[in-house]
Amino acid sequence: MNKMGMISMRLIAGLVAQRNALCLRSWRSFSGMTISQIDEEVSKLLQLKAQLGGDEDKHTFVLKTAKGTRDYNPKQMAIREKVFDTIIRCFKRHGAETIDTPVFELKETLTGKYGEDSKLIYDLKDQGGELLSLRYDLTVPFARYLAMNKITNIKRYHIAKVYRRDNPAMTRGRYREFYQCDFDIAGQYDPMIPDAECLKIVHEILSELDLGDFRIKVNDRRILDGMFEVCGVPDDKFRTICSTVDKLDKMSWEDVKNEMVNEKGLASEVADQIGEYVSMQGGKDMAEKLLQDPKLSQSKQACAGLADMKLLFSYLELFNVTDKVVFDLSLARGLDYYTGVICEAVLTQTTSAPATQERNGPAGEEGVSVGSVAGGGRYDGLVGMFDLKGRKVPCIGVSIGIERVFSIMEQKAEAQAEKIRTTETQVLVASAQKNLLEERLKLTAELWDAGIKAEVLYKKNPKLLSQLQHCEETGIPLVAILGEQEIKDGVVKLRTVATREEVDVSRAELVEEVKKRCQQL
Amino acid sequence: MNKMGMISMRLIAGLVAQRNALCLRSWRSFSGMTISQIDEEVSKLLQLKAQLGGDEDKHTFVLKTAKGTRDYNPKQMAIREKVFDTIIRCFKRHGAETIDTPVFELKETLTGKYGEDSKLIYDLKDQGGELLSLRYDLTVPFARYLAMNKITNIKRYHIAKVYRRDNPAMTRGRYREFYQCDFDIAGQYDPMIPDAECLKIVHEILSELDLGDFRIKVNDRRILDGMFEVCGVPDDKFRTICSTVDKLDKMSWEDVKNEMVNEKGLASEVADQIGEYVSMQGGKDMAEKLLQDPKLSQSKQACAGLADMKLLFSYLELFNVTDKVVFDLSLARGLDYYTGVICEAVLTQTTSAPATQERNGPAGEEGVSVGSVAGGGRYDGLVGMFDLKGRKVPCIGVSIGIERVFSIMEQKAEAQAEKIRTTETQVLVASAQKNLLEERLKLTAELWDAGIKAEVLYKKNPKLLSQLQHCEETGIPLVAILGEQEIKDGVVKLRTVATREEVDVSRAELVEEVKKRCQQL
Repeated sequence: MNKMGMISMRLIAGLVAQRNALCLRSWRSFSGMTISQIDEEVSKLLQLKAQLGGDEDKHTFVLKTAKGTRDYNPKQMAIREKVFDTIIRCFKRHGAETIDTPVFELKETLTGKYGEDSKLIYDLKDQGGELLSLRYDLTVPFARYLAMNKITNIKRYHIAKVYRRDNPAMTRGRYREFYQCDFDIAGQYDPMIPDAECLKIVHEILSELDLGDFRIKVNDRRILDGMFEVCGVPDDKFRTICSTVDKLDKMSWEDVKNEMVNEKGLASEVADQIGEYVSMQGGKDMAEKLLQDPKLSQSKQACAGLADMKLLFSYLELFNVTDKVVFDLSLARGLDYYTGVICEAVLTQTTSAPATQERNGPAGEEGVSVGSVAGGGRYDGLVGMFDLKGRKVPCIGVSIGIERVFSIMEQKAEAQAEKIRTTETQVLVASAQKNLLEERLKLTAELWDAGIKAEVLYKKNPKLLSQLQHCEETGIPLVAILGEQEIKDGVVKLRTVATREEVDVSRAELVEEVKKRCQQL
Repeated sequence: MNKMGMISMRLIAGLVAQRNALCLRSWRSFSGMTISQIDEEVSKLLQLKAQLGGDEDKHTFVLKTAKGTRDYNPKQMAIREKVFDTIIRCFKRHGAETIDTPVFELKETLTGKYGEDSKLIYDLKDQGGELLSLRYDLTVPFARYLAMNKITNIKRYHIAKVYRRDNPAMTRGRYREFYQCDFDIAGQYDPMIPDAECLKIVHEILSELDLGDFRIKVNDRRILDGMFEVCGVPDDKFRTICSTVDKLDKMSWEDVKNEMVNEKGLASEVADQIGEYVSMQGGKDMAEKLLQDPKLSQSKQACAGLADMKLLFSYLELFNVTDKVVFDLSLARGLDYYTGVICEAVLTQTTSAPATQERNGPAGEEGVSVGSVAGGGRYDGLVGMFDLKGRKVPCIGVSIGIERVFSIMEQKAEAQAEKIRTTETQVLVASAQKNLLEERLKLTAELWDAGIKAEVLYKKNPKLLSQLQHCEETGIPLVAILGEQEIKDGVVKLRTVATREEVDVSRAELVEEVKKRCQQL
């Protein structure tokens, strides 16, 4: 704490106490100071305090993380690493490279990319120099990276934290700082092949994470825009009506219609026509049917989108993932930059409490819905926004919303009272006798140098019991016990913690023996 | 770009052109507008622009990352992952768990922890709510985490980015956003055992990274303070004189003395006495000798530090690392929170150009010196600063300054023209004939589902040559070639890219065959 701040706080506290005492004394003046004089002094001191950078809470130091953020403890980290490992293996299986970008970007890099969500961007204080903002997603920095380096072809993944000044709902896995795991394919290719691979990836990851049943909804911005066009939505209202449609997974149709008509000024009949379309769900057959729809087929955009949707489903059949994919006309997604296929994966298991709780709650990560765990889409115009000549690089990508996955995995681990190891130590170097610290340290260093994961307690003379307890608590499977006799004989007593079995192993063979036993575990 | 901003920029450009034209016309007034009127208008418009949030560069969009930050391209990421892997393996070998903390903390959490370096902290803009700052290191968040969760014992590592508004020197590996790889041991233990392990870890990592010869300097804040005491430095100048001593690795003794005497008001004789001590370097023997030093031995603090230094070296002998460790009385380290042993590792290879370039340059990461690649120390008071009752948790830790390591590894890779693979793809599914896209996609999905890392070009009818070129460029070792005949026969032509050898493999055996061949590579 700031010393000046502390002094002024004490002064203020004293003066306030004095003022209160004065009040009790029937408003008499005291020591030549009137109440108004004191009030004036108090006010001056409060001003002084404000100048010193103090705020109301300064004197009671709050020990917490910033709102909407959290620490990961070692157990949570162990779960997190397991999840990341599954995801990264999948991304690598699909031939992706990886890149990294800074956590902040020039403010103008993010400007005009997120529509209504722009208000959620964190800005850095202007401390001289450039105006900076924390990244809101990994997609815009990726597009900036492509344009800056004139890259026209890449398949990359990027796992990193992003920042949104949203209302956090942390028990439901919604934070202000959260991870995104993005996989994107940039390049001019034949239609729907990369798009199908992105959906295949979502399918693989959600299956492997074993979070229960799921559904991947797909739609196309061109179909949505075509639908708006033929229903009679004015051109300049496409994006805002799109945002309203996006709320259908957490609001009833009545509420959505109400917003369209009363807030966004759409004619009621237009809204009703939209209502008919957005209730439709299906597969390849639905795309074929809609291509024959007398109204929708009048829109060139919609027809292009529907033809691609048919093609997409034919590839998804080859990839064997159509069991989980639904063509859903109500899927809209909030972000401005999508231009083609969009998708979103939701967990459908109704037993999962958090998902149902969220049903009427606010938007989830990415501004998406109920139990949404992945989302993405095609954004063919974004890179061009960063190119002086507007050269386009077509892109499609998906993002795994990992925080909800963590929450579910944590709940699962807790429910199963699963014992999660947070270290990988193979052997503890211990002793039952006193004055063997140096011998223990020497052996431990030998093991480290041979690549064995080893620990030693940082005590001169620890009790054998506390050494064994440390193994039990942290899951260390083996103990190498040293005693005077063992040292004389050039051996170590190797104890298996689980069975309490002990055998003498010669010092020369210890490393191999530890390796062998750990492989068997 | 903001429309209003654009309009006002155009107006300004027009007016400025008009003003310049007027100048050429011998300062005559024009269309009833005087130069001063125009200047006034320009100034008004510039004000308007400022209100709109525009800055000088707004009209020419700058495609760059923020000052002092950089992207990592796939090759750099491949190197980064290799380095991280080495470091993490070492941390795990020593039994460490891992945690993570948010990238920003409450501003007050960081206040009063960094001394003169506090000015380098990035603050977030006050957008309502809490006042936040980007973390400056991982140590203070770690201490906050321990206090908040009342943890008194932990051995953890944390690898994450930290932020400093410093003058970047990126070619020398100095950034405003950079990684720290921290290993810390918290807990009340017998003296110097955890301290010795931390130095062992630095030794292991620097040896394994193979960056050339290195030296690990150690000292103790208690010895420094004792030295200041017996030399006659006033109590309140200990920390600031400590900061000046810290500059000895980049400034001559004359310059350091000059700063002490002329900037910090130390008596010249006092500075000279300090000068005698700080030129000393040695090992355990020097600690023994200094314990007999008639002046230094008068300080209790110094004696405690020197006795511990002796003990530390005896443990380092057991760990077999004394070849690289030097007891160096000039090592001071900039940060306020150190209370005991401090250390710093430097690369000593004079052939490494960047290290010598830096010799007279500004401070490196952590405010440390020439070619410094790791640093740390004991901070027994920091956790107590976060505890309402001031309960202390003794801690020691080291931080590997990885950016410099990356720079060196990158230069090395470039110098050796090493081909670094950025993907792990094992096989490309290809075809020499047309109209086999569907067959290619089907086989690729089969391979993915069997856990094989496989790619397929996103073209309907790619040429065989371009498919083989893709393998050459990205290092894919195998190609599974499909043709009408192969499909009929239920086989795949498996081609080894390096040897151009081709054999038919039955579809049923393909997965096993790819696995087998990749193991042999």
